[in-house]
Amino acid sequence: MVYIGIDLGGTKIAAGVTNREGVILAQASAATIAERPYKDIVRDMAGCALKALEGAGKTIDDVETIGVGIPGIADNVTGNVIFCTNLGWHDIPLRDELQKYISKPVFIDNDATVAGLAESQAGVSKNAASSVFLTLGTGVGGGIIINGKPWTGANGVASELGHITLEVDGIPCTCGKDGCLERYCSATALIRMGREAVALHPESLILTRAGSAENINGKIIIDCAREGDPIAMKVFDRYTKYLALAVNTVISFLDPEMIVLGGGISMAGQYLLDAVKAKIPHYLMYKTMPYADIKLAVLGNNAGIIGAAMLGLVLKEGESL
Amino acid sequence: MVYIGIDLGGTKIAAGVTNREGVILAQASAATIAERPYKDIVRDMAGCALKALEGAGKTIDDVETIGVGIPGIADNVTGNVIFCTNLGWHDIPLRDELQKYISKPVFIDNDATVAGLAESQAGVSKNAASSVFLTLGTGVGGGIIINGKPWTGANGVASELGHITLEVDGIPCTCGKDGCLERYCSATALIRMGREAVALHPESLILTRAGSAENINGKIIIDCAREGDPIAMKVFDRYTKYLALAVNTVISFLDPEMIVLGGGISMAGQYLLDAVKAKIPHYLMYKTMPYADIKLAVLGNNAGIIGAAMLGLVLKEGESL
Repeated sequence: MVYIGIDLGGTKIAAGVTNREGVILAQASAATIAERPYKDIVRDMAGCALKALEGAGKTIDDVETIGVGIPGIADNVTGNVIFCTNLGWHDIPLRDELQKYISKPVFIDNDATVAGLAESQAGVSKNAASSVFLTLGTGVGGGIIINGKPWTGANGVASELGHITLEVDGIPCTCGKDGCLERYCSATALIRMGREAVALHPESLILTRAGSAENINGKIIIDCAREGDPIAMKVFDRYTKYLALAVNTVISFLDPEMIVLGGGISMAGQYLLDAVKAKIPHYLMYKTMPYADIKLAVLGNNAGIIGAAMLGLVLKEGESL
Repeated sequence: MVYIGIDLGGTKIAAGVTNREGVILAQASAATIAERPYKDIVRDMAGCALKALEGAGKTIDDVETIGVGIPGIADNVTGNVIFCTNLGWHDIPLRDELQKYISKPVFIDNDATVAGLAESQAGVSKNAASSVFLTLGTGVGGGIIINGKPWTGANGVASELGHITLEVDGIPCTCGKDGCLERYCSATALIRMGREAVALHPESLILTRAGSAENINGKIIIDCAREGDPIAMKVFDRYTKYLALAVNTVISFLDPEMIVLGGGISMAGQYLLDAVKAKIPHYLMYKTMPYADIKLAVLGNNAGIIGAAMLGLVLKEGESL
C-alpha cells in the first residue's frame, strides 16, 4: 500500500506517493494560482496526486490514505479547511472535493505540523517519541508531536509557536498582537535587525554584499557573520539569543525529547545550531538536568509531501492523539 | 481499594486516603521541619499516611498505591527526588525510604502537576481530556494534563510555565534568568506592582488599608481594585494583562480543552476570572475559533492530597503518558 501526500502552498502544489516509511516513490507539481476558484485548485491537487501515482507504477487501489498540508488550519472531523489566509480560503470542503477524484480517507493539517510529522516519521526526529518542530521562515510555525502523533489541540489552534508573546508590548505583529515570538525569530526578523544595523553602521560587510538595505536577506547576514564582520556578528548574536529563548520556552513548557529547527534560516546549518545550543544552558531552569536534543531538519522541501502522506498513517478516525 | 496521597510542603506534611473518585476519606498532617534529616521527614510522611488510613477504617491491604506531590522534580523510574529546593533535597531515594514503612507502589510528581491532576480527576477540569493548571502563588507553577495523564516531559522538566520568557531581558527572576513569566503573573509580582504604585501614589486606598508598603498583599490590592480605587484598578489591570498573555501562551502553544487558575491569587474568584477572560480575545491568533475554557480551581488545599493519590490511579509502570 502507498500513501498520497499533497503539499498545498500559496504558489505551488506538490504531490507525492510514499511507502509506509515515508520514502517518496514519485512526485508531481503544478502552480497553485491562488486566485482561482477552489474547485480548480483541488482538481489540480488531485491531478498531481494521480500523476505521481502513475509515476510510482501504482493505481488508486494501492492507495491507503491521502494527506494534505495547508498553510492554515483544518477540521479533521468535517474535512474542511477552516482558514487558509494565503489562498483566501474559509470553510472550504477540501475533503469532499478531493474525494470526487480519489475516493480515499483524507486528512488535513497545518504545514508546520506536517513538516514536524515528516521529520518524526522519516527524518531527524525519527526515534523521538515527542518532538517540537520550529520552522524559521517568513514567519515562525510550530509542529508538536506527542507519542508519534501530531498534537493540534482541543480546538485545532495549538502549536502556533510564532504567536506566543516573547516581549510584552513588543514589535507589532502581522497577526494584530504585539511582541509575538515570530517578530524576533523569523527570517523577516533577522532581516529587520540587519537593516537596522546597517542604517547605523553602513560600513558593515552586510551592506557591501547586499548592495542596498532592500536587498539584505538572512543568508547575507549569516554569511557576513560567519566571515567575521563585527556588525553582522552582533546581529546574528542578537537573533540567536531570541531563538535560544524560544527554544527554552519549548523546553520549559513541553520538554520534548527533541526540538527540530527547519525553514529557510535552518539552511545556515551547523553555524546556526552551534550558536543557539551555546546559549541554551544559560536559560535552563534546571541546569544539571538533561534536556531536549536540538537538531536541524533534514528533509527540506520534501517534508511537505512526506509529512502529509504520513498523516494518514498516524491518524485514525479524525483523532489527533 | 483506596489510594494514599501525600502533599509534602516546605512547612507541612499532609497525607490523606481517597477512593477511586478522589474523595478524601480521612487525612492527617504534621510539621515538615525541613532542616531535619530526610529519613525523619519520610518517617513522618508514612506516619501521617498510616494515621489517615486508620482514620478511614482501612488497612495497608486496602491500599492500591501511594502518591507524593513535592515542590520539586522527581524521577518516577528510580523513585528518587531529583531536586526539592525548599527542603534542600537532592537525589533523595524517597520511594525506597517510604516503602520501608508502606510496601506499595510509589509515584512522585511536582506539586503543580499534582494539583492539575487533582482538578482533572475530581475537580473543575474533570470532563476535560486535556488541561493546563496555572498556580498563581509566590511563584507560578504549571501542570499539564494530556489525555487524562500528567505530562512531565521527556526529561521530567516540562510544565515550568513560570519560567518561560514573557519579556526579553525583563525583571530578574529568582531562577537566575530575566523576564520569566512568574515575575509578572505571581502574587509576588502583583505585590511588587502594588508597592511601585503606592510609592508614586501614596493617596491610594492600598496604602491606607495596608498601613505600610511592606504590609501590602495581593488580597488588599484586589479588594481595593474591586472597591474602585483608581490606583489599585490600574495595578489590577496591568496584572491581569500579564495573566491574559500567559493564558494566551498556553492557548497558542498547547490549546488544551481547559485552563485552570489556582493558587492564592485565584481566591479573588470571579472578579479575577472576568478580568482575565475579558482580555483574552484581543490576544487570540484565530479570533473566530473556539478556545480553552478558563476556570477557577475548586479543590483548594485538598488538591495536593487528591492529586497525589490520583497519581497512582493514572500512572502505570512509571510512565507519565
